[in-house]
Amino acid sequence: MGHLNPSIMDIKIGSRTWPPQASEDYIAKCLKRDRESTSVPLGFRISGFQIYRTKETGFWKPDRQFFLSFSADDVRLALRKFVSSNGSAGSDPDCAFASVVYGGSTGILAQLLELKAWFEDQTIFHFYSCSVLMTFEKELALEGRSSGAEIKLVDFAHVVEGGGVIDHNFLGGLCSLIKFISEILTTPDECYPPKACLQASEKSHFCSDDGINK
Amino acid sequence: MGHLNPSIMDIKIGSRTWPPQASEDYIAKCLKRDRESTSVPLGFRISGFQIYRTKETGFWKPDRQFFLSFSADDVRLALRKFVSSNGSAGSDPDCAFASVVYGGSTGILAQLLELKAWFEDQTIFHFYSCSVLMTFEKELALEGRSSGAEIKLVDFAHVVEGGGVIDHNFLGGLCSLIKFISEILTTPDECYPPKACLQASEKSHFCSDDGINK
Repeated sequence: MGHLNPSIMDIKIGSRTWPPQASEDYIAKCLKRDRESTSVPLGFRISGFQIYRTKETGFWKPDRQFFLSFSADDVRLALRKFVSSNGSAGSDPDCAFASVVYGGSTGILAQLLELKAWFEDQTIFHFYSCSVLMTFEKELALEGRSSGAEIKLVDFAHVVEGGGVIDHNFLGGLCSLIKFISEILTTPDECYPPKACLQASEKSHFCSDDGINK
Repeated sequence: MGHLNPSIMDIKIGSRTWPPQASEDYIAKCLKRDRESTSVPLGFRISGFQIYRTKETGFWKPDRQFFLSFSADDVRLALRKFVSSNGSAGSDPDCAFASVVYGGSTGILAQLLELKAWFEDQTIFHFYSCSVLMTFEKELALEGRSSGAEIKLVDFAHVVEGGGVIDHNFLGGLCSLIKFISEILTTPDECYPPKACLQASEKSHFCSDDGINK
């Protein structure tokens, strides 16, 4: 059985989205975006998500604009909402699916740690502006079945040769994401003040259908 | 017994030496230097070293200018020369002290891995433009005693609050350095073509006494 109503989050990894060999114009454009987003402070940025709510209300799928002003706390909150049964409501996220989606021996954290081990060693490729997609099926999780939690590496438009050096830029950002997800698993009940931007957007972007924005 | 004739290498960690909060002028200055050095490609740069040779010939201690044009291969070669008995000669470095300085349960690699584990977890401080100093005593190593290999974190002029986020910039660069040192331990006999810049400088900087340049 495939993914029917996948919740998906697109996370662009790395504090620097430009390859050293890029043109000055391209570097200036990327650097501006990296500094204005959470890429520079956090080492990654959420560039899109769709979170499945219910059969009646469908997906919460904000457009691209929504993510541009994300702060570190917005990122924390979004990563919690992603695995909450009440992710769509104005209330604090309950992180009901954190342990089945992020946790466990086959969950997203375990998969991210496997990816990390690969990046600590491989020196063939450097991935700029590349994303980790996190997906799972809320309906399966609700039925008590495997949530199908999975990560995928996507967007290979700016992959360059590693030249015998590890991709320290991707690895650093990946470690930062791992830390954020670990913290949700160790303190699932921790509350963050609901952010105005996240709350407001949920109303205006209810069930949009323009795909995950990048 | 203290360090009498320590060989020392100063390695500035992180592909980005500027804090996000810095002024535009400071960022532009640092970014230029980061891009022109190995900081951006490798995630770290060697900013100085003194390598002890013999009682007669003293230290090899190039001035600051020497390190500005370092390539990835220059860095590889310097990390090998640092632990070679013939580090000062024009010949290929023999890496005679690699296993006692870099290797072992208390060697530099083990200490770097301990530092890495700390950086994977701590979210209190971000270290910009901070260096790892690697030191050891060649004379002790020659006598078959403990080489006193040690790392130290120095240069805290640009330490800022971490705000609950790991220092992915430092961590990425540290992992890259760890990979370089691991490779020396696994392939100590590998030869790199002597680099013109390293060879020429040894002559001109013979036994200079202006301290490790930063």
